[in-house]
Amino acid sequence: MSRPSYDPPLHAVREVVARALAEDLGPLGDLTASLVHASRTAVADVVARSAGVLAGTRCATEVFVQLDPEVRVDWLLADGEAVVRGAKVGRVEGPMRTLLTGERSALNFLCHLSGVATLTRRFVDAAGPNAQVWDTRKTLPGLRALEKAAVRAGGGVNHRGSLSDLVLVKDNHLGGISIGAAVELAHAQWPGRGVEVECDRRDQVVEALDAGAELVLLDNMTPDEVRSCVALVRERARGRVLVEVSGGVTLDTVAAYADAGADLISSSAITQSAPALDLGLDFVPGGS
Amino acid sequence: MSRPSYDPPLHAVREVVARALAEDLGPLGDLTASLVHASRTAVADVVARSAGVLAGTRCATEVFVQLDPEVRVDWLLADGEAVVRGAKVGRVEGPMRTLLTGERSALNFLCHLSGVATLTRRFVDAAGPNAQVWDTRKTLPGLRALEKAAVRAGGGVNHRGSLSDLVLVKDNHLGGISIGAAVELAHAQWPGRGVEVECDRRDQVVEALDAGAELVLLDNMTPDEVRSCVALVRERARGRVLVEVSGGVTLDTVAAYADAGADLISSSAITQSAPALDLGLDFVPGGS
Amino acid sequence: MSRPSYDPPLHAVREVVARALAEDLGPLGDLTASLVHASRTAVADVVARSAGVLAGTRCATEVFVQLDPEVRVDWLLADGEAVVRGAKVGRVEGPMRTLLTGERSALNFLCHLSGVATLTRRFVDAAGPNAQVWDTRKTLPGLRALEKAAVRAGGGVNHRGSLSDLVLVKDNHLGGISIGAAVELAHAQWPGRGVEVECDRRDQVVEALDAGAELVLLDNMTPDEVRSCVALVRERARGRVLVEVSGGVTLDTVAAYADAGADLISSSAITQSAPALDLGLDFVPGGS
Amino acid sequence: MSRPSYDPPLHAVREVVARALAEDLGPLGDLTASLVHASRTAVADVVARSAGVLAGTRCATEVFVQLDPEVRVDWLLADGEAVVRGAKVGRVEGPMRTLLTGERSALNFLCHLSGVATLTRRFVDAAGPNAQVWDTRKTLPGLRALEKAAVRAGGGVNHRGSLSDLVLVKDNHLGGISIGAAVELAHAQWPGRGVEVECDRRDQVVEALDAGAELVLLDNMTPDEVRSCVALVRERARGRVLVEVSGGVTLDTVAAYADAGADLISSSAITQSAPALDLGLDFVPGGS
Amino acid sequence: MSRPSYDPPLHAVREVVARALAEDLGPLGDLTASLVHASRTAVADVVARSAGVLAGTRCATEVFVQLDPEVRVDWLLADGEAVVRGAKVGRVEGPMRTLLTGERSALNFLCHLSGVATLTRRFVDAAGPNAQVWDTRKTLPGLRALEKAAVRAGGGVNHRGSLSDLVLVKDNHLGGISIGAAVELAHAQWPGRGVEVECDRRDQVVEALDAGAELVLLDNMTPDEVRSCVALVRERARGRVLVEVSGGVTLDTVAAYADAGADLISSSAITQSAPALDLGLDFVPGGS
Amino acid sequence: MSRPSYDPPLHAVREVVARALAEDLGPLGDLTASLVHASRTAVADVVARSAGVLAGTRCATEVFVQLDPEVRVDWLLADGEAVVRGAKVGRVEGPMRTLLTGERSALNFLCHLSGVATLTRRFVDAAGPNAQVWDTRKTLPGLRALEKAAVRAGGGVNHRGSLSDLVLVKDNHLGGISIGAAVELAHAQWPGRGVEVECDRRDQVVEALDAGAELVLLDNMTPDEVRSCVALVRERARGRVLVEVSGGVTLDTVAAYADAGADLISSSAITQSAPALDLGLDFVPGGS
Repeated sequence: MSRPSYDPPLHAVREVVARALAEDLGPLGDLTASLVHASRTAVADVVARSAGVLAGTRCATEVFVQLDPEVRVDWLLADGEAVVRGAKVGRVEGPMRTLLTGERSALNFLCHLSGVATLTRRFVDAAGPNAQVWDTRKTLPGLRALEKAAVRAGGGVNHRGSLSDLVLVKDNHLGGISIGAAVELAHAQWPGRGVEVECDRRDQVVEALDAGAELVLLDNMTPDEVRSCVALVRERARGRVLVEVSGGVTLDTVAAYADAGADLISSSAITQSAPALDLGLDFVPGGS
Repeated sequence: MSRPSYDPPLHAVREVVARALAEDLGPLGDLTASLVHASRTAVADVVARSAGVLAGTRCATEVFVQLDPEVRVDWLLADGEAVVRGAKVGRVEGPMRTLLTGERSALNFLCHLSGVATLTRRFVDAAGPNAQVWDTRKTLPGLRALEKAAVRAGGGVNHRGSLSDLVLVKDNHLGGISIGAAVELAHAQWPGRGVEVECDRRDQVVEALDAGAELVLLDNMTPDEVRSCVALVRERARGRVLVEVSGGVTLDTVAAYADAGADLISSSAITQSAPALDLGLDFVPGGS
Repeated sequence: MSRPSYDPPLHAVREVVARALAEDLGPLGDLTASLVHASRTAVADVVARSAGVLAGTRCATEVFVQLDPEVRVDWLLADGEAVVRGAKVGRVEGPMRTLLTGERSALNFLCHLSGVATLTRRFVDAAGPNAQVWDTRKTLPGLRALEKAAVRAGGGVNHRGSLSDLVLVKDNHLGGISIGAAVELAHAQWPGRGVEVECDRRDQVVEALDAGAELVLLDNMTPDEVRSCVALVRERARGRVLVEVSGGVTLDTVAAYADAGADLISSSAITQSAPALDLGLDFVPGGS
Repeated sequence: MSRPSYDPPLHAVREVVARALAEDLGPLGDLTASLVHASRTAVADVVARSAGVLAGTRCATEVFVQLDPEVRVDWLLADGEAVVRGAKVGRVEGPMRTLLTGERSALNFLCHLSGVATLTRRFVDAAGPNAQVWDTRKTLPGLRALEKAAVRAGGGVNHRGSLSDLVLVKDNHLGGISIGAAVELAHAQWPGRGVEVECDRRDQVVEALDAGAELVLLDNMTPDEVRSCVALVRERARGRVLVEVSGGVTLDTVAAYADAGADLISSSAITQSAPALDLGLDFVPGGS
Repeated sequence: MSRPSYDPPLHAVREVVARALAEDLGPLGDLTASLVHASRTAVADVVARSAGVLAGTRCATEVFVQLDPEVRVDWLLADGEAVVRGAKVGRVEGPMRTLLTGERSALNFLCHLSGVATLTRRFVDAAGPNAQVWDTRKTLPGLRALEKAAVRAGGGVNHRGSLSDLVLVKDNHLGGISIGAAVELAHAQWPGRGVEVECDRRDQVVEALDAGAELVLLDNMTPDEVRSCVALVRERARGRVLVEVSGGVTLDTVAAYADAGADLISSSAITQSAPALDLGLDFVPGGS
Repeated sequence: MSRPSYDPPLHAVREVVARALAEDLGPLGDLTASLVHASRTAVADVVARSAGVLAGTRCATEVFVQLDPEVRVDWLLADGEAVVRGAKVGRVEGPMRTLLTGERSALNFLCHLSGVATLTRRFVDAAGPNAQVWDTRKTLPGLRALEKAAVRAGGGVNHRGSLSDLVLVKDNHLGGISIGAAVELAHAQWPGRGVEVECDRRDQVVEALDAGAELVLLDNMTPDEVRSCVALVRERARGRVLVEVSGGVTLDTVAAYADAGADLISSSAITQSAPALDLGLDFVPGGS
């Protein structure tokens, strides 16, 4: 399939997993696992305890493999696939101690990232086919590459990965200069980059369009205001201009904004406030 | 005051902030900030856009200071304090560009950690004075020290920091050995550590108490079952034994568990599913 | 001035300088500096031994400060300024040993980055005012943020900072799909990003324009071919489309390409093959 | 066997070995190994040149594997096993250059960690079966996880892994508050953690017991004083209380303290002052 | 062959490659590669587009392997071998996306390091068999181990790897003490190290020889001056003394300095100002 | 004074201290320090509890400063100075919590490094003025720069810092080639480096001298054998050749080897087996 990978880059996964293990194992390792006989092996299923969208399998695999390269991890479902409650998602086999020690770190990745993918999917479904759901830079520190990949797994698309991607002109960037001057400067300084202008009012939209902005961000507008601005954009833009809506968008209102003609509806909730998806590890009786 | 610090250790803050900045600035830095004249300075207030409990100020300060040691950050409120909607929380002064560039990273820390503190406080308030709210190891990878500090800021207490803190015996640790044997082994291997036993049933509680466990974890029990087990513990324990309740605890049910006599009620939601608290940066007009 | 900073982000500088010092000091530190009496202080001028454009001062300062926070570094010229042969660029004061120990590491940054800025400036001057000089991803591993800043100091502009910035479709990305299909897919997957298409032939330019590409890269064409394609773009493009020229561009040919109407002329030489600018440290007699 | 692993966590080993190699190879690598023909292979035995207890094999293996994944390392003995003088402990096979280059780094781990295990074993043997030998936080910076594992290999048990494990109240923690108040505060702040109180005098022991401390540390007492305090503890403690003895414990006095009834005898010497165990690499003639 | 390895140590390669990938992939990974169907595989040849000397193959391999351990990289030529224009140097096979994503990072290593090797070889050939070409500490920050290996691949030899290798006394190290005193001090402080003295004048050479310096560095002298000093050294030195020439050495003058009898001719250009060697990746049609 | 610094490079200190704090503070920080009122300040003296030589003060300072930049650390004695039992070595002032939290990490550096300096000094004193005491590469992983500095503080001198410093030819490096061939090859490959040859027998010494080795290592010889070989060296060497003695050197035998004429006597014990020097922190009553 020709679509962006739902996996974060492997080098990023390696680094964040190493840090997670250092954090969770501490200087003594897993005190409790030492109660288990070292020779015991086990098989455990990764099971969804509620329904949602899977993400983070590459991280979960890496957790076990960094603990012990001999552990075998197989996935029955892939990132981006829907999971129903009770579904077996994957299987882990190896030394019982290693499975117990890695369990929580692996699940921390899976539950958080699947939570992001799941909430994204809900926004995507609510928005319908005419608008795309866009993420933001409101991600958890150190986890951006992972959360952005989970957004993709949920069906969303990625806005800026960092401050060096696009130009997004907000009110505070304008200190005595006009929107028009700012857009012109941005095009001169950063040729080829999309330049987006945050607009609170209709006249700002006009100004942004006249200046040749590639994107218009309608902030905190009602669906009706959005509809009106979209009409303006379609009529007045000299080329292809995308309209983003942000601010106060919820699962209840996203459809109205999509109907209003927005191309992109951005949500900080999908990365910043997504509840964890409940996934667990069920050890298979007699599994070793 | 003689209470644990609500700040994570400074060395941990430095490291996670450096990582966050690397992630957010990218190889070119902030494209949009370059539209602002380099000599402009600004003053901005950190303002709460909804009510909650503050946490993460040390991280937010560090973000600006790592970008430019000349930036001045002052806090009107401290971690652990309640903020009302609209409250000014702190003030940042320095080059306009630096304030714009650091804004999102600083807020990402503040909003997430204040979200953790806020949800913790709600559990603490709901639980009342007789039970403590305990966190878990279900934290976001790479952010444990920060989230644990935010839990403290919210009035909660910290369960294990890592797998090398306490012994917590779950079902899967027992493979042919009894609870009694496991507790004995744990005491022998890790003297001085609290040994906690997860119990689904009353007879397991008896076994754990007889074995001398210091903590009993009642998992997925109703408040009535908890009450009955607490009575058993109080009557039968040979020393001081703490009772933890976990599983299915919500803001609605936490009071009932506290009433049932639990010493500690643990919640994974406070770290894993806390929605961000909405805080923003308001630039002060004419502030430079 | 409203222009991008010529300094790389401070956190990036700190990290790369720490690595450079670890590399250069080794486990024993500076063997030779120990011949100097520990109490001697010194003053040394950073002097240009040939003419060029300055870059890398932030890195050079950081080298000395990491060795000893008491060293004082002052710059008479700033990054982006022209230096003539023999010009005093800056001054360093502090313990003689520290100055000797840091000298080479500081100069390694200054000489390489000033070399990048200098060669960039030569291309910029040769190109004239109608075309901008664009860098590439052909940078030295680990030094991208620094080299991109040096390009800006030289008057060039930055193309992609990383693979996650823009979409740049080359021949190898097309495996059975048309340019049109690729551009459409790119716009759908990465909304708001500029999409650039590498074209070797005139018909590819047509295809790219029809598909709505924001940038056209003319690779390995003669100035005449470029002129013809530029005319095509100006006539046929539905919006603002930028034309980049790359491949075989030298100081001798860059003016011809600029005359041919290219908006952007990219050069890998400015980062990958820039000779070091010769700068040195002259100790001031009786300077302590 | 149901005992804690004698290996440090693999992720910790990877990191410390990478650092050791960076330190030992320098920017040019092994100057001397280049005298050897690149195609020569070799076999070498790890041989004990004095008797002791083995530890650090996981680190030694990692040294060679990081240099060249093709090197094969086999161990005839495992961490925790006694080695006699002259015993073959393991075997390394691979390119002669790699074996020569890794030799010292591998032995540095083996000799130091086996030294720790060996001295621990001597204390354990001297203490006899009635008291356990406890380590301390007096470890060498950066090597804690490795040294704690070596202590376990020597038959000792691990005291605190870090400051976030247990509460250990010393004189200096009490500034105007009583032992009783401190213990109560500790239990409230850090539920489930063992609370230990350092006591120099008999009345402090009483106070600690009355406050419900889980552990009593008798510091710098004679065996007779210890015996008397142990009796006090056994008689007065409301639950299971462990008695630790520290200060001035040597191989000569450890038995007397064990006889006096201490549960745990802690020694900083086993990590901080353990002489290296002499192990070497013997190249097998004609071994390639 | 008994010669130093042309490869930098593997641990150094791993670290610098991980950094290069983090730098180039950014938080979103390769936007453009996602246009390619994930199941496509490809074969690509590494081809020389100009003649030179190969270096950096270990780094290039590591780039692809870190992205995806399944990629297969084979080299037809080894570091240190001459490549002609159009020569196939190696072959990469694996997922098309991975090949596209890793292409630039792998080539950045190959082109820079082969550039260093190529320019080194030109100096070596120009110098002839009687003098060796020596590198300097004028390397690019973070790349020293790699560039020093490339110099070896080019036939040069390595001067100091770091400040803790040799003693090299320059003018500025002498503040009131004579060359003789400095050399004596150096021998006392750092026994076994070679001590080199930078000389601008004939009388300094005499002083250095009398003091027992192992190396004499003739700085900025004409070939005739060098010849005269070499004669002095051969006549007066009490043991084996090497003569290094530095300053103003170019491809045009190196032969004259070699003829003048210098043992070692050092060049900063070979590391600091070597233009990249042009190598590219040619995808093999129907290669998957 | 013109002598090597007794401090390790500051960047190395920063890194190892950050690691030590991460290791010792864990994810929750110092549980016990939280019993102390946050506003209490304190003054504490660093006191020697036994006699020896001080080292590691820079590390100890850095520990406190990384925890809290407001802590003030003053030293009454410097690295390299002798301390008597009971001597006040330095003073720390700041928040009581910070002093308690940093105490152990600071002392771990001080005690180990002073232990190294102290044992070195004992060897130096025993050897007398005619021979120098040389360290080895038998250092503790990750601590080499620190231990080498401590050796200097103890009056010893540093042998190789890493494998890329000197050439040291041992038996295993010779596989079918003679000592003479090896020395010649080493001189050709690594010009300017000292080449040392390990000799077990008198004829090997002859061979090494004839080949022009700069150093001869007499391994495991008796003082008489050493005396004989030294005479041989003095008589036969064509230049300045240093004689190192290693193997079985103890405090009891070092004088005999010095008398036998060795220039350098190397000891692995001083880094690998030095017992910690006992230093502690004494809080000053009423000190805040």
